[in-house]
Amino acid sequence: MPETELQHLIRLLSRLPGLGPRSGRRLALHLLKKREQVLLPLTDALRATAEKTRTCGVCGNLDTQDPCSICADPRRDAHLICVVEDVADLWALERSGAFRGLYHILGGTLSALDGISPEDLTVETLLRRCAGGGVSEVILAMNATVDGQTTAHYLASRLHEMGLKVTGLAHGVPMGGAAESSASPRR
Amino acid sequence: MPETELQHLIRLLSRLPGLGPRSGRRLALHLLKKREQVLLPLTDALRATAEKTRTCGVCGNLDTQDPCSICADPRRDAHLICVVEDVADLWALERSGAFRGLYHILGGTLSALDGISPEDLTVETLLRRCAGGGVSEVILAMNATVDGQTTAHYLASRLHEMGLKVTGLAHGVPMGGAAESSASPRR
Repeated sequence: MPETELQHLIRLLSRLPGLGPRSGRRLALHLLKKREQVLLPLTDALRATAEKTRTCGVCGNLDTQDPCSICADPRRDAHLICVVEDVADLWALERSGAFRGLYHILGGTLSALDGISPEDLTVETLLRRCAGGGVSEVILAMNATVDGQTTAHYLASRLHEMGLKVTGLAHGVPMGGAAESSASPRR
Repeated sequence: MPETELQHLIRLLSRLPGLGPRSGRRLALHLLKKREQVLLPLTDALRATAEKTRTCGVCGNLDTQDPCSICADPRRDAHLICVVEDVADLWALERSGAFRGLYHILGGTLSALDGISPEDLTVETLLRRCAGGGVSEVILAMNATVDGQTTAHYLASRLHEMGLKVTGLAHGVPMGGAAESSASPRR
């Protein structure tokens, strides 16, 4: 029996991150039952996003304009560049509202195991941005993982050679957290 | 600042059942990063489903044809009708592959609390189907909840009046389960 449109949709939904066959079926049924209120608006939103979203040529952010709204915003401090691994990290920092400079998205971390070298990341673009002048400080906001910190060390040495001020995020007990709960063993 | 396409998409995704703001953002980012492999096929599948899926006029199933592929299948036993609450229940029974008759989808259960009376469900359609002749047995496969069983009792009395054989699903320890694990208190 050939796969119906509905079975095809369930298969695609089931493969999305965090979903499985059960939640895929549940989602498909919800979408079909709320055709006008949920399914059609979602289809339109997906199409609009697919058509309009592009990668910022300066920082690598995803936005409907290039350069992105952060790079194009004159109120942001262009002397400061915060380097993050992924767009999700940029979003998290933007939600905090604490940073008023610009970003640079690396696209991952260096990893000897996975064979990811500086050429696979946007390292050269970052160094060119910094060499262009106007940047006085680079904040390395990589994740507190082995690969993240290796990448931060590598970038710090390259940026120091260029005479730039390099800083990082503070690591330690989470704000508002107790030493006891943070001392649990981590992978 | 007006909402961008991306923010709009994240808001819609976050409202889907089982998802929240965090998984909505994660999904949106996944879709954007895999534009060709995931986003575009999913958009096409949603559009095709929205256009082609209709409710079966006989049993209430969702399918690309009306009557649905189950009602239209000559190999299925039209003497047997299995009454279920929801399309999800039909899907679950079909996955088991154990039932070879036809279905009838009630669209919910009777509920005094929520003010759901037989007129809000497809009870009359079911009685008309049975009165039309050719049906010899009705299997009531409502969920083992108070409302489900109330609905089953109501339907059983109406169907008995018509001289039909009415049966139900067996309830008890799950197949392959032990009495001990099933004896845990339930809401």
